[in-house]
Amino acid sequence: MYKETNKRSIVKGISWRVVATSTTIAIVYFFFDRLDLAIAAGMIETVLKVGLYWAHERAWFKVSWGRKKIEPFNLWFTGLPLSGKTTIADAVFKELEKFQIPLERLDSKDIRDVVPNIGFTREDRNRHMHRVGHLIKTLQNNSISTVASFVSPYRESRKAIREMVKNNIVVYVKTDIETCKKRDTKGKYEKAIKGEYQNFTGVNDVYEEPQHAEIIIDTDNTTVDEAVQVIVKYIKKNYVK
Amino acid sequence: MYKETNKRSIVKGISWRVVATSTTIAIVYFFFDRLDLAIAAGMIETVLKVGLYWAHERAWFKVSWGRKKIEPFNLWFTGLPLSGKTTIADAVFKELEKFQIPLERLDSKDIRDVVPNIGFTREDRNRHMHRVGHLIKTLQNNSISTVASFVSPYRESRKAIREMVKNNIVVYVKTDIETCKKRDTKGKYEKAIKGEYQNFTGVNDVYEEPQHAEIIIDTDNTTVDEAVQVIVKYIKKNYVK
Repeated sequence: MYKETNKRSIVKGISWRVVATSTTIAIVYFFFDRLDLAIAAGMIETVLKVGLYWAHERAWFKVSWGRKKIEPFNLWFTGLPLSGKTTIADAVFKELEKFQIPLERLDSKDIRDVVPNIGFTREDRNRHMHRVGHLIKTLQNNSISTVASFVSPYRESRKAIREMVKNNIVVYVKTDIETCKKRDTKGKYEKAIKGEYQNFTGVNDVYEEPQHAEIIIDTDNTTVDEAVQVIVKYIKKNYVK
Repeated sequence: MYKETNKRSIVKGISWRVVATSTTIAIVYFFFDRLDLAIAAGMIETVLKVGLYWAHERAWFKVSWGRKKIEPFNLWFTGLPLSGKTTIADAVFKELEKFQIPLERLDSKDIRDVVPNIGFTREDRNRHMHRVGHLIKTLQNNSISTVASFVSPYRESRKAIREMVKNNIVVYVKTDIETCKKRDTKGKYEKAIKGEYQNFTGVNDVYEEPQHAEIIIDTDNTTVDEAVQVIVKYIKKNYVK
């Protein structure tokens, strides 16, 4: 978040003065046909009004009327591991940043890197979702929208998120599990199948498909660019006016 | 966070016009001694410049130069249970809100109410502190300052917070444990002494005094108002200029 510096108000005053005084000189010249006096009047106007404009600018800076609170939203990407959530969410985030709205990117991996041993059991995941929901809610209190990508395989935890935050938009990244496995260059699915990972969604833990997703991206038939377009269009239509 | 609406820019334009045109009329009258023409010039100026001012205002709205990123801080209240952390932190928060900086209040109890079963063992508490640190860091990314109150009895977790966030200000609310017990209308200390609570700081768990607190509030000799004054003065001096 930013504040307007004094310097900005001064330079803004000067830039306005150039526009305004040229207009005044033209008007006075039009009425009296005396360019010398028109310019003299313009010069006096300049001196007086640079100061007045600055004072006017600072006074308005203290008035909150006409400033509209920005309404935050939460884009929630859910889907199997390696379904393409992070890739699409990253691209959407980049695109949304252009609207100059306060925006934060939350990715499962980043948070799990910071906070040790969150765990992957159903109970662990649900508690984790409560914490993420609290984080998003706190950000929303401050008008910050979020682009969040989490496997979030259980209905009850996605429901908890929906209840905790406002303007929740679930994006279900729907990818065939065979496609996910093919993309898996780190061999995570393989390790899970071998039993090296417990509670790995899609292998030894369930993924409960969302029933009320606002947006469904079928990545087997949609490119990343197309997905970004659909999602950004939705946001533009509903939240960035 | 707020954005400037179009309506605000228009009304700001009109209010400026009243100031500016009166000045123009006075100047033209001073030069030509013809009030009728001075007023006519003023009227034409009004029509032209309301539009110009509006366009100038919208153009500057798109320019980021001269907007200064607000530097966030974290006020971290630590101390024994019932030492007075929450009371002082609430009062400080109320006072700081007057500066119109983006600000969030984080209290141990509120978070523990939202997220179930955080736990009170040394390991539980340290993980909890990592999560709170991540929350504060994410808020700081968005220029939001925080007023946080947590018992946070261990040196290592306070150190972790200090490493994760910027402009960390530790306020050690130093209260004699006998005073804490006297304030304890809910009988929490008593229950802990009877063994009903495990890991209760000050009874069956240690409180490691901060060695590097930026501010120490000795509540046995300081009123809440005095404490608030000291803390707000510190913030004003270092962060709100």
